[in-house]
Amino acid sequence: MTYLDHAATTPVLPEVLAAMTEQLGRVGNASSLHASGRAARRAAEQSRERFAEALGARPSEVLFTGGGTESDNLAVKGLFWARRQAEAGRRRIVVSPAEHHAVLDSVEWLAKHDGAEITWLRVEPSGRVRPQALAEALGDGSDVALASVMWANNEIGTVSDIPALAAVAHEVGVPLHTDAVQAVGQVPVDFAASGVDALTMTGHKLGGPMGAGALLLRRDAECTPLLHGGGQERDVRSGTLDVAAIVGLAVATVTAVGSREDRADRLSELRGRLVAGVVERVSDAQLNGAPLDDRLASGPGRLPGNAHLSFPGAEGDALLMLLDARGIECSTGSACNAGIARPSHVLLATGADADRARSSLRFSLGHTSTDADVDAVLDVIAPVVERARRAGMGRR
Amino acid sequence: MTYLDHAATTPVLPEVLAAMTEQLGRVGNASSLHASGRAARRAAEQSRERFAEALGARPSEVLFTGGGTESDNLAVKGLFWARRQAEAGRRRIVVSPAEHHAVLDSVEWLAKHDGAEITWLRVEPSGRVRPQALAEALGDGSDVALASVMWANNEIGTVSDIPALAAVAHEVGVPLHTDAVQAVGQVPVDFAASGVDALTMTGHKLGGPMGAGALLLRRDAECTPLLHGGGQERDVRSGTLDVAAIVGLAVATVTAVGSREDRADRLSELRGRLVAGVVERVSDAQLNGAPLDDRLASGPGRLPGNAHLSFPGAEGDALLMLLDARGIECSTGSACNAGIARPSHVLLATGADADRARSSLRFSLGHTSTDADVDAVLDVIAPVVERARRAGMGRR
Repeated sequence: MTYLDHAATTPVLPEVLAAMTEQLGRVGNASSLHASGRAARRAAEQSRERFAEALGARPSEVLFTGGGTESDNLAVKGLFWARRQAEAGRRRIVVSPAEHHAVLDSVEWLAKHDGAEITWLRVEPSGRVRPQALAEALGDGSDVALASVMWANNEIGTVSDIPALAAVAHEVGVPLHTDAVQAVGQVPVDFAASGVDALTMTGHKLGGPMGAGALLLRRDAECTPLLHGGGQERDVRSGTLDVAAIVGLAVATVTAVGSREDRADRLSELRGRLVAGVVERVSDAQLNGAPLDDRLASGPGRLPGNAHLSFPGAEGDALLMLLDARGIECSTGSACNAGIARPSHVLLATGADADRARSSLRFSLGHTSTDADVDAVLDVIAPVVERARRAGMGRR
Repeated sequence: MTYLDHAATTPVLPEVLAAMTEQLGRVGNASSLHASGRAARRAAEQSRERFAEALGARPSEVLFTGGGTESDNLAVKGLFWARRQAEAGRRRIVVSPAEHHAVLDSVEWLAKHDGAEITWLRVEPSGRVRPQALAEALGDGSDVALASVMWANNEIGTVSDIPALAAVAHEVGVPLHTDAVQAVGQVPVDFAASGVDALTMTGHKLGGPMGAGALLLRRDAECTPLLHGGGQERDVRSGTLDVAAIVGLAVATVTAVGSREDRADRLSELRGRLVAGVVERVSDAQLNGAPLDDRLASGPGRLPGNAHLSFPGAEGDALLMLLDARGIECSTGSACNAGIARPSHVLLATGADADRARSSLRFSLGHTSTDADVDAVLDVIAPVVERARRAGMGRR
């Protein structure tokens, strides 16, 4: 089996599995005062320290959550509610239309339910949000509750210059949230140096477990809780600490961040060969997103493992199923939208037409990817595309 | 070590650990369309079916969540928002003051943030909410968004007659949510037969993992999402399905429900010996909650493993720490409030005075509890209470 869908989820690292299995065998609620409770608390707090250090954050800035979707919802809704409560006039949310649905749908719900006003950011054809676009959208910032721009796009892999965007937002007193789910472990991410006020990450994109993520939140960022209760996590995120998942998340993050550079070099090379080989075999295939060698001041301009291509005249879903039948697993876009036959909102946001958006495939490489995986795609891509095109013509 | 804090969290069952470890070793996002994704989806859906069957629910009524706190928040806020949106006049929430903080704090936040009005239910000295009290609080129900009454109290173990309460609520067209976190696997819980509209449960109270729970939600119950995004779980709870945790949750629930009767008999007997032995050794110790042999139409009136006692003149925290020093682990109340030195809101709700509320200890027995655990407590309880009383006098 050739697994090239690491952006949807990537295999759990062996050291993560070992650490989680060990912790799952121990009893203790981290809020309990007895010895078992204190041991569970110690395991969680030691993990918090290592995790924070790997991401350039202070331990007190880490809020453990149930994953990326929860972190995005907490950041967007929590910052909005808190800011609007402090100043009723701050109702505007400035956001890119290429965000993950966890951000987009939260923003749209706030517009319907809580009187938020949405300002959509201009997105470059590469998928990037430029500081200039953010500055224009913010204006003097006085009516803005928050801005949200993802660090790296989950479909086309484009990285935005988040430190530069944070500086722009802070010039007019607006907090910036960034969804860094795809960025952590792939490109350099330093919370303090980035200047962002809130950062979403999740475990299962970097070798950790599903159901475990974090929101990094500056101490001075007011955030209304989404989950009320026992008062865990600075009273911003209640719920029994999932210690085994936190331990696994920390091991995965420390490992993925520590091995990032080597892996990025390796994946970038594999990905380059994959894209070149596909374009050689399917001459009208189009690369979506930023150029492969794109650079920003803050690091690579594109995720090293991302290859997102359109095959004009072929349906993405048909390509996906034909590849799957040959043992090659990839996606048409976000797994979170899979099964819904509509063109990618990300590609549409970049200005691509509906045909290009519907004919796209995402190959995402990760820590287990090999030369053989690339070869497997190159062996079959031409006949698969041809067959998908014929099927498409037959349907018309 | 004598672990008598199973209501805070109980050891993971070996079969759960095995099933989770196996699933953690597999890659695949349940929303992905390729073979690995479909296999993950199959694992989740098979677990959903077994899980639903164990609780008398249909698979489509199961929303997997990150645990009890999230389920409570989703039920209370989601039902409130949806009901108020349908009928603006439905702003009242009828709730017991002895609920878990995940319910209480959600309700209080809605009152502050969203114009909810709270009607507190009358609670019997045992901690029970009677159908008559609910009927009186609901009135004609026309201005009520929802009612919420827990199935079994997490501190004192008192069970309310949820089927009877659901019938009362439905007579006036009000949906009933119940927090059954402590009830599932301890007393008979059948979702369909109970008639409730929404039911909270969590994994780590019955031998499953932390970070995994469910809200059982009737198909006709409108519930606004708390987490927006990819549209998983009937579009009511977005977020990548945590398949390993779901598999573990299902194995734990099926096992705990299947072995419930035998375990209840065994724990009830152990608990009876514990309470009798403590009262024999500390003659003024007071049992809190319902009588040990209390019965309701729907089953036992008190959780079989719960022994909640007050030791007048001794501080609960002092007792806890003195017992802990002797290798006996228990709690003063909810682990979720541990570390906060204030009398239990549950005991205060039952009409107990602050002294009684502050001098209480909860021993909660579970699947690993033995005769030796009871003996361990009985061996030390008298000197421990005496010492705590002396320490308390010294401080005055």
